[in-house]
Amino acid sequence: MISYSEGLAKILSYAKQFSFESVPLKLSNNRVLAEEVRADRDYPPFNRSAMDGFTISSSDYSENKIYHYRRELPAGSSFQLEKGEEAIRIMTGAPVPIGLDVVIKIEDSLLSEEDNNGKRVSFSLESVRPWQNIAKKGEDLHEGDTVLLPGHTLGTSEISMLASLGKSFVSVAVLPKVQIISTGNEILSIDQTPLDWQIRDSNSYTISSILSKYKIIPESVKNIPDEETLLTEAIAKGLESDILILSGGVSMGSLDLVPSILQKLGVGLVFHKVQIKPGKPIWFGKRGNTIVFGMPGNPFSVQTCSRIFLEPFLRASMGQKQNPVMRLPISGTRNKKGSFTEFFPVRLDTKDKTYLSTVPFNGSGDIRAGLFSDGLAVHPSDSVQIREGDWVEFLPW
Amino acid sequence: MISYSEGLAKILSYAKQFSFESVPLKLSNNRVLAEEVRADRDYPPFNRSAMDGFTISSSDYSENKIYHYRRELPAGSSFQLEKGEEAIRIMTGAPVPIGLDVVIKIEDSLLSEEDNNGKRVSFSLESVRPWQNIAKKGEDLHEGDTVLLPGHTLGTSEISMLASLGKSFVSVAVLPKVQIISTGNEILSIDQTPLDWQIRDSNSYTISSILSKYKIIPESVKNIPDEETLLTEAIAKGLESDILILSGGVSMGSLDLVPSILQKLGVGLVFHKVQIKPGKPIWFGKRGNTIVFGMPGNPFSVQTCSRIFLEPFLRASMGQKQNPVMRLPISGTRNKKGSFTEFFPVRLDTKDKTYLSTVPFNGSGDIRAGLFSDGLAVHPSDSVQIREGDWVEFLPW
Repeated sequence: MISYSEGLAKILSYAKQFSFESVPLKLSNNRVLAEEVRADRDYPPFNRSAMDGFTISSSDYSENKIYHYRRELPAGSSFQLEKGEEAIRIMTGAPVPIGLDVVIKIEDSLLSEEDNNGKRVSFSLESVRPWQNIAKKGEDLHEGDTVLLPGHTLGTSEISMLASLGKSFVSVAVLPKVQIISTGNEILSIDQTPLDWQIRDSNSYTISSILSKYKIIPESVKNIPDEETLLTEAIAKGLESDILILSGGVSMGSLDLVPSILQKLGVGLVFHKVQIKPGKPIWFGKRGNTIVFGMPGNPFSVQTCSRIFLEPFLRASMGQKQNPVMRLPISGTRNKKGSFTEFFPVRLDTKDKTYLSTVPFNGSGDIRAGLFSDGLAVHPSDSVQIREGDWVEFLPW
Repeated sequence: MISYSEGLAKILSYAKQFSFESVPLKLSNNRVLAEEVRADRDYPPFNRSAMDGFTISSSDYSENKIYHYRRELPAGSSFQLEKGEEAIRIMTGAPVPIGLDVVIKIEDSLLSEEDNNGKRVSFSLESVRPWQNIAKKGEDLHEGDTVLLPGHTLGTSEISMLASLGKSFVSVAVLPKVQIISTGNEILSIDQTPLDWQIRDSNSYTISSILSKYKIIPESVKNIPDEETLLTEAIAKGLESDILILSGGVSMGSLDLVPSILQKLGVGLVFHKVQIKPGKPIWFGKRGNTIVFGMPGNPFSVQTCSRIFLEPFLRASMGQKQNPVMRLPISGTRNKKGSFTEFFPVRLDTKDKTYLSTVPFNGSGDIRAGLFSDGLAVHPSDSVQIREGDWVEFLPW
């Protein structure tokens, strides 16, 4: 049986980048950028006043000198300095005219009475320095500078930036076509009334919810009993998608038909079973361009396998950076037997410091297992005990 | 001028919970639960075999005793124990028949040859304990137990749970109607070509992207110049929504028309200006059932004001729990003058431990300010210096 890191490495090695498409920026939240984006011009595009006040030249400044001014320069306009003009009233966001290099804010300005030459102002500052209160053209970005590379997830900061650059359409990774099949004679769709020994299909909801983080809507979601003909038909249909995700039917039982049907349909096994808890019986394979995840049937196993294997695969396939590793201190101790890597639900708690707290549950069949947790913590394969205060790997949901 | 905590408290005091509506569970991701959810039956709903193997009674177990069995019990079926029947082949997920209380996994079973009485099996375990490898009826939840309360955000764990409970429709907080107006003569929509002294409207994209986290799609998004008639008309229209979000026009300039127009239209001022950086000029008020946020025009100010004021308001208005406070160690030192609360972009980095790193930028007009950051860190009003290793409040995006 392979280890967690071997399983993850194998899965990632099968990620083949999907194509890309152009979408309107306003619909691009959480999509994965597929182009290099460069600055279309300098930013700021002009010497921008950062304050409301007056713009003057630093060259002949002195405290209490009387400046004459006539004009007021709002944002969205542009002035050329006129002959003899030594000060201009200027607004935040307006371009400082060529020949001037200082903005003094209105609070430091002393307005005098108008004389024959126009309005008058002096300033209470002992001295000024060139470019004070001015964001200089190009100080943030120069035209042609690379701003974003392919692989960035488009969150608020990225979308804000792309809007500034005028990218009303943006190239993003195409979303894969996904089908989901929950298998098991005991599984009913959630709008049916179960008999005492039946349970409802939560797994397809778990998987769909995780896919929705990536804006993926499954093409089809089915519940299929452990019946060879029906299951073969559904799986054959599922193999027409990019990714087929099954839950249930991959363990040791005589009705665990999924592996044999997959192999009969020509899906090549990459691995079956990984040294992890929960999720040990996971099956992973490939036919043509279709990747198949066969997850165990327990709800917490599905949520864990989705987080530790499916999501990294999706990210790699969309050319997206992997989530960076996080390590936080944990409260309490945790003991482990055996050499499996174990994943357990944890909550973020904060007193003076943010730390992880374990969330108790009754094993991977417990429908409450993930509830009230912020993610999974990792108990590494070679560690017997996690101790109070250890910095533990944390995988946020 | 009020402090950050006073501003936040005032904003939250104006949150009035919106109504609720029923939506299909599959469309409920990131919505806010508006009902108390209880277990519709015990969970597990029956004594569920956690293994593939044999089910027997603990009462007369002995190692190497020969058990006769005839039947195989898959998940999704139910058997009543027949007279003389002492063992049943059982699958993971199947209900253990009444009268039996042990499951022994197939790996610990020794199958013998069939005799006249049927198939035979013995077990290699020295002893068994009652209920081993069985998830007992009701051990996770009892019928009627409260599972979720109103205010929970529906993430993967919650949706998985609700599916298990058969909630194909779920009551959630109605989304508010929001309008966005970016003001400023210098602002063009992002598909127009700016002149040298014009910039594109990124702010409405920033705000829309943040709203999308809550599944809110703005009713309308407009760019309006600093022109009294046009702005009055647009704001009057905006006041027909639940929340009107403006950016720009709230500072000291003579073209900063937003506060006067709002007051002319009967919007009551709650506060104007808060001791924060960035975002100081923020304006907040109310008319009837409409809340108005007047944010400053700089992109990083908009992103910050949205995170620290708009999002808490939205959460409170939807009855949603606030994000819990997080505190993480920071690398590097940071000095501050004055008594404002300052917010600065930080990245999560991990070596052995996860810590915050500052992301350099050129002030709140820098369109790169939020880029490559994972959230904001807080430099409290009364702190002069943040030191290497201090545990600093962190607001993830």
